[in-house]
Amino acid sequence: MATKPDPVQPADDAALSQARALMTLRHAALAWADAETGHPSVSRIAFGLCPEGGPLTLISALAPHSAGLRADPRCSVMLGEVGDKGDPLTHPRLMIRARATFVAADDPARPALRDHWLKGHPKAALYIDFADFAFVRLVPESALLNGGFARACRLSAAELQGPGQVAE
Amino acid sequence: MATKPDPVQPADDAALSQARALMTLRHAALAWADAETGHPSVSRIAFGLCPEGGPLTLISALAPHSAGLRADPRCSVMLGEVGDKGDPLTHPRLMIRARATFVAADDPARPALRDHWLKGHPKAALYIDFADFAFVRLVPESALLNGGFARACRLSAAELQGPGQVAE
Repeated sequence: MATKPDPVQPADDAALSQARALMTLRHAALAWADAETGHPSVSRIAFGLCPEGGPLTLISALAPHSAGLRADPRCSVMLGEVGDKGDPLTHPRLMIRARATFVAADDPARPALRDHWLKGHPKAALYIDFADFAFVRLVPESALLNGGFARACRLSAAELQGPGQVAE
Repeated sequence: MATKPDPVQPADDAALSQARALMTLRHAALAWADAETGHPSVSRIAFGLCPEGGPLTLISALAPHSAGLRADPRCSVMLGEVGDKGDPLTHPRLMIRARATFVAADDPARPALRDHWLKGHPKAALYIDFADFAFVRLVPESALLNGGFARACRLSAAELQGPGQVAE
């Protein structure tokens, strides 16, 4: 019996560059499990990187995904814009499987996250210090880059981080 | 002890119109559970409506969300474009909690779904009849419309369907 070819390939340098470019986007779709039922749910989130290059978001305790991530930290983010032309499924997007870690208000790392976040999200100055807002690290486990129709690559957490993301 | 005001309001006519406008979009973010681990996952999908107005997608059996939805039909879709200007979190989006129902290749309803789909997604003619592609109904359970920062409404499945969606 012939085996089906695996449609997912390991990442080459072009794929790594594309993945890292997508990680500079400022918003993402977050998949999370409902705190009570486990129903897979989706929200738009603000997206950015820590000074060290790892994915980060800033969320309100009033948002339903906040309770969801506290109950089950497993989540995924999708990064990628759909352009005006052509089939939306041919536009590149990066899906990162991650675990959410909340950063406490008194965490010694918070001031550096806050300063770095405001460089990329200046409008967040309006609410970044509200008591119900918290930073959440989205620690990658693996990723899938879909570079267009039938062009998909797997990326490890280490490949996603990459040397280019460490330096500011 | 004072109770916190509920940030989510029932839907008014303006919210219903906005929700139905978002349902005319051609792609969405789908949240689904991984078939093996249950990890909340996210994919971009093609989105459209059945002739009767219900949410519909067309997916390949090679896509990881196909196996996920067959193992656990619970899912959510998010509809909404982010414009070029301003905070992405102020742009409206609709999140629909749903259950996926696969339409078999020999389902008597398939020809009508196929014809209707091609009107909205003419480029799908390239692959719509491939053996690994299937229509999947995304039957709504409830929805949340986020019309911008701190403006959210709940919608029932009946409100989502609405009289305006039945007619072509």
